[in-house]
Amino acid sequence: MKDTFKIKFFPHNKEIAVKEGETLIRAAMEAGVHINASCGGEGVCGKCRVIIESGDVEGGITEKLSQKDREAGYRQACLSLVKSDLIVRIPVESSIDASVLNMQSTPRCTARIKEMNLEDLKDKGLFLPPVEKKYLELPLPTAQDNLPDVSRLVGYLKLEHGEHRLVVDLSVIQKIPDILREADFKITATLARPVHPGRKTHIINIQPGDTTHRNYAIAMDIGTTTIYGQLIDLITGDVLAQFGDFNAQISYGEDVISRIMFAEKPGGLEKLQEVVIGVINKLIQKMVKKARIDLDEISTITLAGNTTMTQLLLKVNPRNIRRSPYVPTSSIYPPLKAVHLGMALGDHVTALVYPQVSSYVGGDIVAGVMGSGMYLTEELTLYMDIGTNAEIVIGNKDWLACAACSAGPAFEGGGITFGMRATKGAIEDFSMDLLTLEPMNITIGNVRPKGICGSGLIIMVATLFELGVIDNLGKFDRNLQTPRIRQIDGIWEYVVAWAAETQIDRDVVLSEPDIDNLIRAKGAIFSGCMTLLEEVGLTVKDLDRIILAGGFGSYVDLEKAMTIGLLPEMDPARVTFIGNGSLMGAKMSALTNRIRRDVVEVTKKMTNFELSETHSYMDNYVAALFLPHTDMNQFPKIKARLEARRSGRKTGGRDL
Amino acid sequence: MKDTFKIKFFPHNKEIAVKEGETLIRAAMEAGVHINASCGGEGVCGKCRVIIESGDVEGGITEKLSQKDREAGYRQACLSLVKSDLIVRIPVESSIDASVLNMQSTPRCTARIKEMNLEDLKDKGLFLPPVEKKYLELPLPTAQDNLPDVSRLVGYLKLEHGEHRLVVDLSVIQKIPDILREADFKITATLARPVHPGRKTHIINIQPGDTTHRNYAIAMDIGTTTIYGQLIDLITGDVLAQFGDFNAQISYGEDVISRIMFAEKPGGLEKLQEVVIGVINKLIQKMVKKARIDLDEISTITLAGNTTMTQLLLKVNPRNIRRSPYVPTSSIYPPLKAVHLGMALGDHVTALVYPQVSSYVGGDIVAGVMGSGMYLTEELTLYMDIGTNAEIVIGNKDWLACAACSAGPAFEGGGITFGMRATKGAIEDFSMDLLTLEPMNITIGNVRPKGICGSGLIIMVATLFELGVIDNLGKFDRNLQTPRIRQIDGIWEYVVAWAAETQIDRDVVLSEPDIDNLIRAKGAIFSGCMTLLEEVGLTVKDLDRIILAGGFGSYVDLEKAMTIGLLPEMDPARVTFIGNGSLMGAKMSALTNRIRRDVVEVTKKMTNFELSETHSYMDNYVAALFLPHTDMNQFPKIKARLEARRSGRKTGGRDL
Repeated sequence: MKDTFKIKFFPHNKEIAVKEGETLIRAAMEAGVHINASCGGEGVCGKCRVIIESGDVEGGITEKLSQKDREAGYRQACLSLVKSDLIVRIPVESSIDASVLNMQSTPRCTARIKEMNLEDLKDKGLFLPPVEKKYLELPLPTAQDNLPDVSRLVGYLKLEHGEHRLVVDLSVIQKIPDILREADFKITATLARPVHPGRKTHIINIQPGDTTHRNYAIAMDIGTTTIYGQLIDLITGDVLAQFGDFNAQISYGEDVISRIMFAEKPGGLEKLQEVVIGVINKLIQKMVKKARIDLDEISTITLAGNTTMTQLLLKVNPRNIRRSPYVPTSSIYPPLKAVHLGMALGDHVTALVYPQVSSYVGGDIVAGVMGSGMYLTEELTLYMDIGTNAEIVIGNKDWLACAACSAGPAFEGGGITFGMRATKGAIEDFSMDLLTLEPMNITIGNVRPKGICGSGLIIMVATLFELGVIDNLGKFDRNLQTPRIRQIDGIWEYVVAWAAETQIDRDVVLSEPDIDNLIRAKGAIFSGCMTLLEEVGLTVKDLDRIILAGGFGSYVDLEKAMTIGLLPEMDPARVTFIGNGSLMGAKMSALTNRIRRDVVEVTKKMTNFELSETHSYMDNYVAALFLPHTDMNQFPKIKARLEARRSGRKTGGRDL
Repeated sequence: MKDTFKIKFFPHNKEIAVKEGETLIRAAMEAGVHINASCGGEGVCGKCRVIIESGDVEGGITEKLSQKDREAGYRQACLSLVKSDLIVRIPVESSIDASVLNMQSTPRCTARIKEMNLEDLKDKGLFLPPVEKKYLELPLPTAQDNLPDVSRLVGYLKLEHGEHRLVVDLSVIQKIPDILREADFKITATLARPVHPGRKTHIINIQPGDTTHRNYAIAMDIGTTTIYGQLIDLITGDVLAQFGDFNAQISYGEDVISRIMFAEKPGGLEKLQEVVIGVINKLIQKMVKKARIDLDEISTITLAGNTTMTQLLLKVNPRNIRRSPYVPTSSIYPPLKAVHLGMALGDHVTALVYPQVSSYVGGDIVAGVMGSGMYLTEELTLYMDIGTNAEIVIGNKDWLACAACSAGPAFEGGGITFGMRATKGAIEDFSMDLLTLEPMNITIGNVRPKGICGSGLIIMVATLFELGVIDNLGKFDRNLQTPRIRQIDGIWEYVVAWAAETQIDRDVVLSEPDIDNLIRAKGAIFSGCMTLLEEVGLTVKDLDRIILAGGFGSYVDLEKAMTIGLLPEMDPARVTFIGNGSLMGAKMSALTNRIRRDVVEVTKKMTNFELSETHSYMDNYVAALFLPHTDMNQFPKIKARLEARRSGRKTGGRDL
């Protein structure tokens, strides 16, 4: 367990607590303290000089610092690792007053919901174990008592454990004679509980000896790009291993549409199913190895994916998903034998696949609704999963409305000149010096930048907008005097990092068309929310909270996302991130039958709106193509802040 | 449809009705009229001369008949086919009086129960269709109504057919998008009904257009020796095709014990499963071809077999069946997907396998109990299925007791010098001239004899016993003057056919050890019945009826079987044959869920008695090692007949 240390930044007089080993530049960003830094944290640009006034850091000394600098306590913030409480001074070379300091970016605002665990489930009365184990010492058969093996097992489960309505699977029947006799009739039976009470319990496995303390499940999120798996201990509820890997279907098409097109070719569907199963099996193996368990000890697997991924997984041709009127094949899928899908699991394992609402609101979203528990509360919740498509769900325990917005790939880096996925070298955090317009770039992996990922993009655009560098249409202020803002081939752009500071030997820039693409993407999502709310007769003010899901959602800065008008304005404390909602839902349904039971009703309750068929959507969309919106009254706090800042900025020296 | 003709035999003055084309010798046998005939009906011995006094026969003229004979109306009975009403005179060359004629064998007494059909089931309230089809014309999806395909199907099944609680199988989900669109959304859904009302109905298939009138099932009896299949029209209840074939497992062992031993070898179980599935698939193909239906139109398959055959079919190692304390693996098997067993049927087809009672009272017997309906009546019934093992069930709708008797293979020809299965060339019927002791042999296929099958053996021993040729211990009367009774190497025997009259160029004989084996076999079965009755506190007198099943049971002469003490004495009118009880039960469970529902309770109700563990069995066995029994008071009618016959025989000329 790492220690936590307090760091105080001067002259800003801002304090933040960070874990041991964090870089100083990330700590500064977190605290809302700007430090010029172009190279993403690799020590190349040499700009991020800070003075350690008290406490210890590790590293941070480079040839860019003279001996004198070093002795004076200068360090490069991007290479300095926190080792104690610190007092850090930012050498503010320009003459700026306190009001400017106060106008530095607000501290990055992210939060995580505490995931539900087994104790929570029990406390809330939601715990109905889907799979249980019972240990039995059976009497040996004799000439006077030569019942069939299975009848003996069933009889004693009734006698000693009060079990009724038992069905014995063929795989157990095939195993039982040998296992009983090898184990001297001392065995553990695995019971799969019915989802609906009163239905039958299936005896799905039998193991020699007492294995009641070893009972595991796997949960999987089958994403278009990435597949994540968790190995869950069903006794404790703990996640024993978690791995992710690219969905190998990517070789046959980057997005769902190109996957569907491939699936329509002869043999295409079979190929795509085969490769996704291959990844699943690889992840299962890694998890089993990591957690040091036997494959035979896994009792159940639950999977969630979008509608196309789900149909491909189950070899159901997805051709109609991409054709008007966008009809998916099924909402609910029956429980399936994992081996019949090709999964390298015991033949006793049932695979439970999350149901779909529509062609573009799939099992990943349903899983998020289940896993987040939003379907159980009174609170009116907006659930958003933002990726290439943004899916939104609004509702509570009484009703649920949902829609998919074609946000385009901007949040995943698509359509952005230097856009990229949130992988190593992507600028994920950014701030800007108010006067010099110099950037502070932080990249994933603390390496020189290659591009900008979605969360970085939002922060960048929000920052440019708040500082007046771009206007509410996303156009640069033509009058600003900095080499970083320039016009090339008629296109205005901001140079985020100079070629020499990058990994790609080209200037990394953010252009007006990039900003425009982002505005269209956020406009599509925001107008989707507005339209859904209107359809149910509500407004943003009625929302009690927002849940953000998706890899992207986990990193987005809430204030910034509201600043650009991606999220409705709301107290950030009422916005929670659940990370991978699909995986969370898969995990929850592995843990309790309550989720398995509720999911069918919840899915039926989720009323799908096809935005393209919804009258008001286009008007809402056009109104949302501004930063943050045409109607600034929808964003009163931002409106106020902008007004305050602009007047403050005036006093700060520069005219806007 | 063949015509039926009346045939009158003189001087016996016996009349019988037979179908057009029947041979005269079989008609005579049926009427209880003895005609000397050694060669089994192939015209070789030339002994079966009869005179056609009126009417027409086809054939019957051979070189053994002179021109004068022919003109006088002489024909060989074995080659004469009935073509009209006939008056036939048997030229009785020996001087026998009317009393002797009356002592000719009683007419062969066999009967067949009328199989239950769909109308019966409906009349008796037993009809619950397991599989039904529903035709639907679905509205085409639109942008405003783009429900998932499956939701559309389920919704309209509810709306138009009042169907609720539907589960859709994955195979249907995989098919539905293409079939709906190919068929312009006009489709037929196949619904598999729950066995227990209130459970879920599965949508197992979807076909383009209206196929509601085409709905078929397959029923199979998996015998150790033979596998029989029926293709059943589920709309009419008619059997559209029926085929049988040897169980190819025979190559790996003739009987269940040697099969089990083979299954215990590495790969043995898999091999045996593979070959039995091979035969099943061959039969399915033949039936489908014969009935001119599509494989896809078969909706369900039901199978019944003994415990070993069932375990081999389901790849469940049968090793404990042959080891004390003879524990089978399971009583009940869950419904299985036919394709998962390797059957060449649609992936929508569920295979239902009959449950087992014990290691030696298997699904074939349970099927017989179900198919015969004995579990539904008040009447106290003795159900017997006689093969290598004889299985017996006694009971009615309130209780059922059962046991397996190790009868040995005598009834299938095993342990009998010239014993053989009931195939071509086996003597299946026999009578004997009271004075000359000349035989009348009738063989299967009307060819020269090769041996004696079980039913022939019973008739032969009963006849020898009734005519005083053997005593109640099965020993030949040493004083009879005929070359047919002789002692060879110290063993007494009766020559049934001389070498020249046979296919095998050896005298076909019946020896005292043969008779002894038969007595042991029938003793094992009869004492099994006695023991079961005693265990439940009843006697033979309490029995209301007997049901005989098995290929053997179909041909056995009831009076003769009682004469040797195989069956308890009873009015033959209260004995019925149901032929292949296993197949009949399989068929019934294909036709109605009522059988599927009842079978679990019935199987639980069937109390198994291990005879070897039952105190009184050995005493009963020893008492049964006589013809018909030590205690002749158990066979009062036979006792009376023997006494009458023996006194009659004295007047007939020869002293006993």
